[in-house]
Amino acid sequence: MGAEVAMHDDNNPAIEILSPSNPRVKRLAALRRRRERRNHQVTLVEGYEELDLALRANVRPHELYICPELSTGDPLAIADRAARCGAQVIQLSRPAFEKAAYRQSPDGWLAVVPDIESDLDRLNLNDAPLIIACGSVEKPGNLGSILRSCDAAGADAVVCVDPVTDWGNPNVIRASKGTVFSIPVVSTTTPEFVAWSRENRITTVATTPDTDAILTDTDLTGSVAILVGSEKYGLSKELLDAADVTAKLPMFGHVNSLNVAVTAAIAAFESVRQRATHG
Amino acid sequence: MGAEVAMHDDNNPAIEILSPSNPRVKRLAALRRRRERRNHQVTLVEGYEELDLALRANVRPHELYICPELSTGDPLAIADRAARCGAQVIQLSRPAFEKAAYRQSPDGWLAVVPDIESDLDRLNLNDAPLIIACGSVEKPGNLGSILRSCDAAGADAVVCVDPVTDWGNPNVIRASKGTVFSIPVVSTTTPEFVAWSRENRITTVATTPDTDAILTDTDLTGSVAILVGSEKYGLSKELLDAADVTAKLPMFGHVNSLNVAVTAAIAAFESVRQRATHG
Repeated sequence: MGAEVAMHDDNNPAIEILSPSNPRVKRLAALRRRRERRNHQVTLVEGYEELDLALRANVRPHELYICPELSTGDPLAIADRAARCGAQVIQLSRPAFEKAAYRQSPDGWLAVVPDIESDLDRLNLNDAPLIIACGSVEKPGNLGSILRSCDAAGADAVVCVDPVTDWGNPNVIRASKGTVFSIPVVSTTTPEFVAWSRENRITTVATTPDTDAILTDTDLTGSVAILVGSEKYGLSKELLDAADVTAKLPMFGHVNSLNVAVTAAIAAFESVRQRATHG
Repeated sequence: MGAEVAMHDDNNPAIEILSPSNPRVKRLAALRRRRERRNHQVTLVEGYEELDLALRANVRPHELYICPELSTGDPLAIADRAARCGAQVIQLSRPAFEKAAYRQSPDGWLAVVPDIESDLDRLNLNDAPLIIACGSVEKPGNLGSILRSCDAAGADAVVCVDPVTDWGNPNVIRASKGTVFSIPVVSTTTPEFVAWSRENRITTVATTPDTDAILTDTDLTGSVAILVGSEKYGLSKELLDAADVTAKLPMFGHVNSLNVAVTAAIAAFESVRQRATHG
């Protein structure tokens, strides 16, 4: 305990930045652009609750920016935890923090962490992986919910095809209960996804109401990627055309579609059931 | 068309109320209390989108209150639709409307509709009904999502045991996509629910992580009520103790629980699968 505190003190001199035009603040603000984050291979985690979830998932932040004037929660405890993981802790003035933050009402917490996004080619897959692929899913709450369900179902990865929402989105992190930091996540394009699934002999199963095949009659025990579409438009024609098979859930009600996160969860656990039965 | 417009004109004289102390406004405001609504066997539907979903589900409002100063959407079209269903249309001044509305930022639409809540004893059940029973589920978005999934799965009713959220809650209506108006919904207490399920020989299946039985190995083909618990605490001890069987979904991940709406959807569609396989 004493050693840890000493390490903290040695490695983390108290840096305090007051000016919004400080080069470090400018560099931090630039990370709001996806391309900058990709170049530096980092993800931004903004917000106390989100940072807490990241630290619980053993994420080791490079840098932690705190604005005491804005911050809520127990600042010292979490700053200490971050520092013990090797993070450099920097205090920002309110104007400096507000320049760097991307939330409308920042709560005084912002961390730069190693990139949480993987690549298709870096995925470490077993011989019968279960992948959930989301085509242009929009709502962060749905993406987060999909991650939480896929984590529970033991899925091997969640892939966003033609993403419209960032994996580091605070609402994704919160709705995922932090599982965005533990389950491998990938962003890719339709052509890349299609090429990769063919190359790796992964059967792509597109969920769509426009088919006669029932999901529970579809083999989900092998190498499989289950595709779910966007809230408004479902799956794109390109993904539907490229899919090996299509499947639907039977619908008996007044509304002809399920929520995308619900569809993904039912499909993931149907695969779990089949694997337990036939495995 | 001409006849309908004439009927509208005959049955719906343009009533305009300016004073918040008008007795009718006071009576309307009193309906914000659950007991008053139960006494009068009505539900309040507040908001343009919610009213639109109600009308699409063939709900026939008794009364429709509009505040032109606050209202968004296409007021005439929807007021006309409500009037054609026999609703009395009343214009309120802004102070009068704000007294009656329960939303913080009312959008100028409020309807009194026939009670959407059923009673356990009034449920019209077939010989193997599928019921989803929610123990103290808190978030309106989750309740709405459960309704949408249960509608799709063809469930016979959704029951709230010891409810904390009203079925007429605008967020329930929206998240349900209007299915709250089509699938039978009931609010009840634990003792009433337990007595009713025993009397009607309905097997109660409590979903809980604290069991060895797997949901997909549990028979869900007969008369069955699947119990899901509150977001924070799961199912109460009383409901768990009273349940005929307990069952869980296998959990392989870092987080040890699923979202309650996801659990309910997976369970409902597992019952659908079993019924299709064994039916």
